[in-house]
Amino acid sequence: MRIGIVGLGLIGGSLGIDWVAAGHQVWGVSRKLETCQQAGALIHGSSTDLESLAAHDVEVVVICTPIESIIPTLKYLAGSLSPQVIVTDVGSVKAPIMAAAQEIWPSFIGGHPMGGTESSGIAAAQAHLFRGRPYAFTPSANTDPQALQRLQALARDVEAEPLVCAADVHDQAVAWISHLPVMISAALIRACMSAEDPEVLGLAQYLASSGFRDTSRVGGGNPDLGTAMAQYNKTALLQTLARYRRHLQHLTHLVETDNWGSLHTLLAQTQTQRPCFVQPDIALNPEAAALCNTPVPIDEES
Amino acid sequence: MRIGIVGLGLIGGSLGIDWVAAGHQVWGVSRKLETCQQAGALIHGSSTDLESLAAHDVEVVVICTPIESIIPTLKYLAGSLSPQVIVTDVGSVKAPIMAAAQEIWPSFIGGHPMGGTESSGIAAAQAHLFRGRPYAFTPSANTDPQALQRLQALARDVEAEPLVCAADVHDQAVAWISHLPVMISAALIRACMSAEDPEVLGLAQYLASSGFRDTSRVGGGNPDLGTAMAQYNKTALLQTLARYRRHLQHLTHLVETDNWGSLHTLLAQTQTQRPCFVQPDIALNPEAAALCNTPVPIDEES
Repeated sequence: MRIGIVGLGLIGGSLGIDWVAAGHQVWGVSRKLETCQQAGALIHGSSTDLESLAAHDVEVVVICTPIESIIPTLKYLAGSLSPQVIVTDVGSVKAPIMAAAQEIWPSFIGGHPMGGTESSGIAAAQAHLFRGRPYAFTPSANTDPQALQRLQALARDVEAEPLVCAADVHDQAVAWISHLPVMISAALIRACMSAEDPEVLGLAQYLASSGFRDTSRVGGGNPDLGTAMAQYNKTALLQTLARYRRHLQHLTHLVETDNWGSLHTLLAQTQTQRPCFVQPDIALNPEAAALCNTPVPIDEES
Repeated sequence: MRIGIVGLGLIGGSLGIDWVAAGHQVWGVSRKLETCQQAGALIHGSSTDLESLAAHDVEVVVICTPIESIIPTLKYLAGSLSPQVIVTDVGSVKAPIMAAAQEIWPSFIGGHPMGGTESSGIAAAQAHLFRGRPYAFTPSANTDPQALQRLQALARDVEAEPLVCAADVHDQAVAWISHLPVMISAALIRACMSAEDPEVLGLAQYLASSGFRDTSRVGGGNPDLGTAMAQYNKTALLQTLARYRRHLQHLTHLVETDNWGSLHTLLAQTQTQRPCFVQPDIALNPEAAALCNTPVPIDEES
């Protein structure tokens, strides 16, 4: 297939590497000449000119820019691409992108490959970044089933596991497991830094170990990404934050009232429930799967 | 030195291994015969009988039991040990232990080596577990300086970095960086499991990646430990929880009011501040050290 990638960072570059390896023809576009030069060694060609993709007669365009540039990029592309070209993106929020994109390119299909590393940029691009990872697609009522199938095949070409879901279901799911963690983790760093006694603050910094390191990791990440997630997924994020704050309030209440039995029960449940999220093959165990499929009641300060 | 270790789990066993390697004579005590047998290969001898330590004429006793057993163990030991024996513990909360222990053994010195792994038990014990890690001691007004020096030397024998601080300063510091993270991480798992739409819950579990994995790790840990931390460090933990909830409320407010500029500034600050806790050598950079020493104001919902 002839593929155009707009935005040659970690995601765009890594997709390009795997698609070239799978035998596709891949052309890239970046705003920066230096990035184009670096990408030149990885894919068939790259340019700073968005219209170059039409000249290469690409069949699929994958927009891999930061989320706020997806729609402006699509608007610009729309002037030069043939109408049968399949356009998708890799943004981590899908409903607002889908809504705006369909006004411009009715056959647009949202995409979200769930891969990444701590690093960013074309220099961090690598083969197999998406191996075994989910790759979500969010089609619309206008989506041509064959176009969706072609994108799913491209997802399998980067060794990802394609899945299809509604854009709003996607956004609610990522609010829970990706955007909410950024906010609660950032609040942890912020709260710890507000310890007023300099001796306590200094000792806390000195004693901090793997527990703090892990819990604070995503809150100490890229502020552009964190802000964009909050901005584009505001409604779902606020719902998860409201729910989270009720659960934290309940937990605080258990400590305040010396309710150690209930606290132990709750912590034993979270120990049992965490594997529902972090062990991909838990569904193979029917007993565990039943547990994972049963939402817990909302904890209330009683 | 002749050392007795009571409680042969991950911490007690690992201390024993390093002290034997450093040339000390080490005897252990465990309630379980099987643990004594496993420890037999690592240290000079072990027994299920607490009074065996007096028979071995130990100079130092290190109580490595779960926190709720420290004081009962000390009470029992007090009947058989010579008064000049130095007694310490490894509990993760120090003020209540110090207060109760001094009633029983006036020269008791609290200790807290900051090492650990995901695993527990004598089978997980390993050499060098404490290499380069802080080892806090919390002496009292009654503490013999020479006894404290002997314990600091023993900490260096396990390659740890001994430090001396007040018990309540220790407890406030670990509330921030160890006990608070357990609570906010557990609340994350709990909140995610309360997602009511089964499609959203299932997709969230399927899409969860390294961000959720790290942020939820300590909340999915041992419920006995989590409950004991909350119980023994209740006052400090509640203070950090109250502060944390205000910061989270502020962050939520920024999202609610579309204040993306302030949210970005806050996330840029947490990105800059996280290394104060997770990069041990940041103090070598004077500019960074100044930043780390300046507590941020308490975020308020404005």
